[in-house]
Amino acid sequence: MTNPITVEVTRGNRVESRHRGMAVVVDGDGKVVFSAGDIEAATFPRSACKAMQALPLIESGAADAFGFGDKELALACSSHSGEDEHVVLAALMLARADTDSDALECGAHWSADQKTLIHQARTLQVPISLHNNCSGKHSGFVCTCVHTGYAVEGYVEYDHPLQRDIRAIMEGLTGAVLDADHCGTDGCSIPTYAVPLKGLAHGFAKMATGQGLEPVRAKASRRLIDACMAEPFYVAGTGRACTKMMEIAPAKIFAKTGAEGVFCAVLPEQGLSIAVKAEDGASRAAEAMICALLARYFEKDSAEQAGLLAMANKPMHNWNGRHVGDVRVTDVLFG
Amino acid sequence: MTNPITVEVTRGNRVESRHRGMAVVVDGDGKVVFSAGDIEAATFPRSACKAMQALPLIESGAADAFGFGDKELALACSSHSGEDEHVVLAALMLARADTDSDALECGAHWSADQKTLIHQARTLQVPISLHNNCSGKHSGFVCTCVHTGYAVEGYVEYDHPLQRDIRAIMEGLTGAVLDADHCGTDGCSIPTYAVPLKGLAHGFAKMATGQGLEPVRAKASRRLIDACMAEPFYVAGTGRACTKMMEIAPAKIFAKTGAEGVFCAVLPEQGLSIAVKAEDGASRAAEAMICALLARYFEKDSAEQAGLLAMANKPMHNWNGRHVGDVRVTDVLFG
Repeated sequence: MTNPITVEVTRGNRVESRHRGMAVVVDGDGKVVFSAGDIEAATFPRSACKAMQALPLIESGAADAFGFGDKELALACSSHSGEDEHVVLAALMLARADTDSDALECGAHWSADQKTLIHQARTLQVPISLHNNCSGKHSGFVCTCVHTGYAVEGYVEYDHPLQRDIRAIMEGLTGAVLDADHCGTDGCSIPTYAVPLKGLAHGFAKMATGQGLEPVRAKASRRLIDACMAEPFYVAGTGRACTKMMEIAPAKIFAKTGAEGVFCAVLPEQGLSIAVKAEDGASRAAEAMICALLARYFEKDSAEQAGLLAMANKPMHNWNGRHVGDVRVTDVLFG
Repeated sequence: MTNPITVEVTRGNRVESRHRGMAVVVDGDGKVVFSAGDIEAATFPRSACKAMQALPLIESGAADAFGFGDKELALACSSHSGEDEHVVLAALMLARADTDSDALECGAHWSADQKTLIHQARTLQVPISLHNNCSGKHSGFVCTCVHTGYAVEGYVEYDHPLQRDIRAIMEGLTGAVLDADHCGTDGCSIPTYAVPLKGLAHGFAKMATGQGLEPVRAKASRRLIDACMAEPFYVAGTGRACTKMMEIAPAKIFAKTGAEGVFCAVLPEQGLSIAVKAEDGASRAAEAMICALLARYFEKDSAEQAGLLAMANKPMHNWNGRHVGDVRVTDVLFG
């Protein structure tokens, strides 16, 4: 099927670029309450599923053993900007497990956030693995391995017991078979599995509602979601979309982006989960789509709805501050 | 019409993201020798048409009056990375016209190139207008105004005589009516006009061949194209796609990118011009498309063709240097 145009980018009075996408909203039973495009298409969730990948950190008892609170749990689910607070907290998590950044297998990179990169350039010679946007997740992985007695070395590999545990968890949540044929390697070297977008959304709906989950998993899931909602800065960073969305409606929205135009969100009070994918992998389109869909579930003209719609339909300004066009969602998402 | 998928981005053994696009190859008569997608769709050329916008700099006599050579002309057609050489040369161009960066109306921004931005962060407090990727074009505009006696102030405005001259030139080259209805404002505040992609390509084919142009315009056009091909670093910068493509086939390729997934190229020896637009505005797709199309016109298995195909089909590596997937063009561009 041809995915519909869900986001347009205008300039002057014309549409300059168009993004196609898939979007789905499901409840805890997996009932589809909204869909657009091919929601059965296998989609790599990339970083959008970090909260699923962090479940062993809690279920193994590692989080409690190391005394992790909301900030540490949020960081374990994060794609952070590499701001000083993120970097320091990842180092402290590792220190709790008597280890350090040498244990991280995520690689190093400069921040993708311009302001943070400028700060890093002025204060660092080169970034290290703690600056990697995935260092919180990886610190959680290392802590889990230390606590459970899994070998730390090689924790990113497909056959490592931690990745096997994560694979089983994600199969249970998404209802999809995740084997080598569905596996790719993520930016930080861990496996990422292509799952139907609908299954990804259903997995998050289960996490939010506990429906169909054993009590231990239901509790761990809710604890991670609550931690992210309580500490949105640690899930992304200053000015980032995930952080802003969770700040707009405190304790009402969990939201997490993934590379290549994926975004997942949960509305715990309503027991709903949303997953979107921009066909072309564009973050700007995924952000607009998820905000537009979230806005449907808030009261008309409420501050939350207005805040979300302002992120879904965004003016673009040029280097002189002139308004040159807009990113805007199409009627497809309001049908 | 639905534009075809022209570029795929893979991960593992699956396609993760898909780009749709339009592409056209025309000769000096405007004959379409290849096309894909809606080549009549009105497209903002953005920075891809800077060589057209630089014609008054030569035709007015300003370039000769100020002693500009290939480097200055290439910079006038550039979207440069803000490397020191670019910034200094823009300042020198303005000094030739007894003016300075205060005359520039393009606004200021940090470099979009990570390596250059890190250097800038370590050496600058804040960027100024000379660091704007369009500062070479704007320096050319200011020099043209000084030489012709046009007011410098307001040279970016729709009704300024320089922008009127450029509008008339672009109407002549593209065969399209360019009025306020077709006009948007570019990132650097000058007008940008939506033209059919085919007309944009035809305009460049005229510039390359001189067909249908008065001798003065034909000569000025060729001088700009030759200057860019002679000094590809000054058209973009270290590691940038335009620069690399022109370095692959010296004096055989002129190439210029524009924001929102536009790319134009010229093969002067063959009298052909290529224009592409990624429907979603993605640069990675536009780069792959233009390189794949350029490769068609080089000898099979030649170094030029191999170099272009290596840019059209590119492996992607993660932070640990692992090969995780590829950007690759589809059969649509080889039909």
